[in-house]
Amino acid sequence: MHPPSIGQYLIRQLYDHGVRHVFGVPGDYSLAFIEMLGEGGIRFINTIDEQGAGYAADAYARIGGLGAVCVTYAVGSLKIANTTAQAFAERSPVVVLCGAPGVTERARHPLLHHRVNQYDTQIRVFRELTVAATVLADPDIACWEIDRVLHAAERNKRPVYIELPRDRVHTPGRPGHQHVDSEEPTDAAALAEAVAEAVEMLNGARQPVVIAGEEIKRFDLSEEVTALAEAAGLPVAASFLGKSVVREDLPGFLGVYAGAISLPAVKEYVESADCCLLLGAMLTDMNLGIFTAQLDRSRMISADIDGVSIRHHHYDVRLPAFVAELRRAKIAPRRVAGPGAAAVQPFRAQRRVPVTSQRLFEAVNAFVRDDTVVIADVGDALFGAVELRIPRPGHFMSAAYYSSMGFAVPGAVGVQTFDRNLRPIALVGDGAFQMTGMEVSTAVRYGLSPIVIVLNNAGYATERFFLDGAFNDLQPWDYSRVPEIVGGGLASDVRTEDELFVALRGAEENRSGVTIVNVHLGQGDVSDNLARLGVGLGRRSRGAV
Amino acid sequence: MHPPSIGQYLIRQLYDHGVRHVFGVPGDYSLAFIEMLGEGGIRFINTIDEQGAGYAADAYARIGGLGAVCVTYAVGSLKIANTTAQAFAERSPVVVLCGAPGVTERARHPLLHHRVNQYDTQIRVFRELTVAATVLADPDIACWEIDRVLHAAERNKRPVYIELPRDRVHTPGRPGHQHVDSEEPTDAAALAEAVAEAVEMLNGARQPVVIAGEEIKRFDLSEEVTALAEAAGLPVAASFLGKSVVREDLPGFLGVYAGAISLPAVKEYVESADCCLLLGAMLTDMNLGIFTAQLDRSRMISADIDGVSIRHHHYDVRLPAFVAELRRAKIAPRRVAGPGAAAVQPFRAQRRVPVTSQRLFEAVNAFVRDDTVVIADVGDALFGAVELRIPRPGHFMSAAYYSSMGFAVPGAVGVQTFDRNLRPIALVGDGAFQMTGMEVSTAVRYGLSPIVIVLNNAGYATERFFLDGAFNDLQPWDYSRVPEIVGGGLASDVRTEDELFVALRGAEENRSGVTIVNVHLGQGDVSDNLARLGVGLGRRSRGAV
Repeated sequence: MHPPSIGQYLIRQLYDHGVRHVFGVPGDYSLAFIEMLGEGGIRFINTIDEQGAGYAADAYARIGGLGAVCVTYAVGSLKIANTTAQAFAERSPVVVLCGAPGVTERARHPLLHHRVNQYDTQIRVFRELTVAATVLADPDIACWEIDRVLHAAERNKRPVYIELPRDRVHTPGRPGHQHVDSEEPTDAAALAEAVAEAVEMLNGARQPVVIAGEEIKRFDLSEEVTALAEAAGLPVAASFLGKSVVREDLPGFLGVYAGAISLPAVKEYVESADCCLLLGAMLTDMNLGIFTAQLDRSRMISADIDGVSIRHHHYDVRLPAFVAELRRAKIAPRRVAGPGAAAVQPFRAQRRVPVTSQRLFEAVNAFVRDDTVVIADVGDALFGAVELRIPRPGHFMSAAYYSSMGFAVPGAVGVQTFDRNLRPIALVGDGAFQMTGMEVSTAVRYGLSPIVIVLNNAGYATERFFLDGAFNDLQPWDYSRVPEIVGGGLASDVRTEDELFVALRGAEENRSGVTIVNVHLGQGDVSDNLARLGVGLGRRSRGAV
Repeated sequence: MHPPSIGQYLIRQLYDHGVRHVFGVPGDYSLAFIEMLGEGGIRFINTIDEQGAGYAADAYARIGGLGAVCVTYAVGSLKIANTTAQAFAERSPVVVLCGAPGVTERARHPLLHHRVNQYDTQIRVFRELTVAATVLADPDIACWEIDRVLHAAERNKRPVYIELPRDRVHTPGRPGHQHVDSEEPTDAAALAEAVAEAVEMLNGARQPVVIAGEEIKRFDLSEEVTALAEAAGLPVAASFLGKSVVREDLPGFLGVYAGAISLPAVKEYVESADCCLLLGAMLTDMNLGIFTAQLDRSRMISADIDGVSIRHHHYDVRLPAFVAELRRAKIAPRRVAGPGAAAVQPFRAQRRVPVTSQRLFEAVNAFVRDDTVVIADVGDALFGAVELRIPRPGHFMSAAYYSSMGFAVPGAVGVQTFDRNLRPIALVGDGAFQMTGMEVSTAVRYGLSPIVIVLNNAGYATERFFLDGAFNDLQPWDYSRVPEIVGGGLASDVRTEDELFVALRGAEENRSGVTIVNVHLGQGDVSDNLARLGVGLGRRSRGAV
């Protein structure tokens, strides 16, 4: 029996990791591999630009566990440096597959097209943006390298880079290679000590609180954390980046905690807690509103993928083991004492009343269902979305820390490509839509039905709080005519609350294709959350930090 | 007197290097610097996405001598990794200006938003893609660093990277700093020996030929090379990337030489030459059609920025000095014996005859004027454009070597931003238009009047020659309706030759705004040049190189 070729082995491993779709733009160096994908049961999804493919793969990874993007050498891969950086910063395991000049060609020809500087320029770039990178040049170790790199993606929930020279796609791998998964041992004594100390702190606390972060979803711990909190009667807040990692309709759920961005009641409750259990939440400025947050390390237990920190000391114990053991430990049950999350009010549209940003989010909240996945772009699309009530774990996503614009529309493509029964709502500012919004074309091409809500406030609204000028204005687009260009979809213009309600109901009913809702907002109009945050921002951008 | 601040000094140096416009998308870390640009006489030009800004700055550099793009930390800069790589590969001096977190913030806060991995992750990426990179953190050396880095851009005609922490924009530079330009000495003896040997070879040749490359334009040597060739009676061909670096309406001009892409008469003449003088032309696969070209090193003199190679030995002598000295030397004048370039035929539109790719280029040729600048995207938009007759040096540009898609439309914005009296024609395939074509919005915003010709052949036509499949198809767009979205411009759909002629004449007359001509071509229809090239391509992509 022939061993599988390097290309076949790679495709088989991707498939076994749950990858059924690969996003990308074809190029001469990647064509042979793209052709092979179909034979391995993986569908290639064309986006209009590589940037869209990178974002779609990131969203696919967040909802599905692992995402992949396939691009050509240099001109393709360097277009997704930024989306790969986003995946790195926010712990999303994306496999960057890059078709490259053949090993033989490289030796023979010093200057093949697409080459930047040296042939290894691009892997040097991607080493900075991934947790593992390889060129599958040597058939003897290629399969082993594939195992190593994919394991690194799974282990760290971060992107990896695999470069496949085109003359290696059909080359047989090493005969007899068997995939082996590495297991990481847990230090049982360290784990026991960490858990015991955590339990003691929690039991001794008068007002403990859990803050759940993005890693809870990445490591598939939503149910365990929910069960842990329910059994112990601990109220749970989500970090900014961790929004929706726990069900938001449970009685113990407080809301999102992110310093000044949070609702005052959430902020007050969390900051007055005498024991704060952070689970899988990065301590970044955006995630916990660190510049505005008041969290005291001496009352904190923080567990993430890199270890457990209690007060000012550290245990070399990883998050999943810590959560599992904490569930088994005896935390004295108490009655949940938190204020509970603000109730979702039914949206009563007022006739002919101009829609505001704040009311827009209240209206969207009334349309969130179990199959809804909200993807919020950065800016007010994100700040305003903080109080949306998301019932399903992982059904809200955003670049809440890295804050790169343009994720929402291609992200919606990624989510619904993973599962066509999901219904993505992309919340996107006009600035971000101009960057990648034309990827609705990809949704039309593949018969997807995302709902794209454009917050049309004629500029970069968040930046106006920092420092305003003509550079924050945008060329006005008629977003509701995009379907006429891309050959599909419904669209409407919305200026009043009743128009908004009709448009959202129409969008919900239009399950056969894309819906675009162009919501005209006043230039200075922003959500209450951004208004609250904005007060503290102006000083910073002028260098007075 | 106070010394200028670091921001002011940087802006002053850019201004002195001829920069009057900086392209970009604003972000919180770059706002303070952007605000300062205007005070220094430099206008900030908003593009819809950073990718467009990177391409526009590249085109601005090619036509104007130096280009600049200003972006924010990580989420902005990493979006232009690819356009910076293009500028590197094709020798276009673009200054990447990146607003970044303040030096004080970095020390105080470990995880500010936009951060990828380490704070220096991004300069490490850009060190791979530029010839010089710096972070202006230390006020004592900041001005000196600015001089060093800008000199590297000018000297190498390649991109550079300047990162400006936001708390350094207003910080005074070192008092008394004076800008000093470094001069590179020429080894007079080496120069004399190289020139003497070159003259001897040329004088002894029966059929010598000059091939002029992209560096002739980059180092502003077009007039000198033209005068040299005319005085000596040497026929001149242009390399692929060097198209238009010499006037194409001179009697001695042969056409573009790029192996199989060239017209047979050009290919035959160049390849039968017994002395080939390459001036500033990279020896890449695309540039000289190297896989299909027959050039013999033992009959070659090749001078570029890195030195002069004659047959198989090398002189450490730079291109500008070599060209200047060659002009002064005694090359025996001869009567130009080349075949001359094919005459431009007047375009006679045939009524109701479907337009073909080949005929499209013949029609465009009839509309090329002295103020025309043609920017060709990759694919057939480039291959077909090879025989356009461009009268002005530097009035044709394309990523003919690096071959990155999406350059043409934002490139046209860059060209006309530099000089509003120029009239750009962007030739762009439908695939490339879907990537960056919406940057016509930027042209509308700033009242520019590029002519955008979309070669609409329903897919990635060039790739179909390598390996075809559904992945080479595109979602069909109605390109002629783009003006309705972006709020300006005229557009038309063209299917026949007479419609094409009417559309092009209308475009020429519409000097007040953007014109889009959506040219419907058959799916398999390509220019004669691509058809010739395509025969040899299929084999490669399957790995059989």
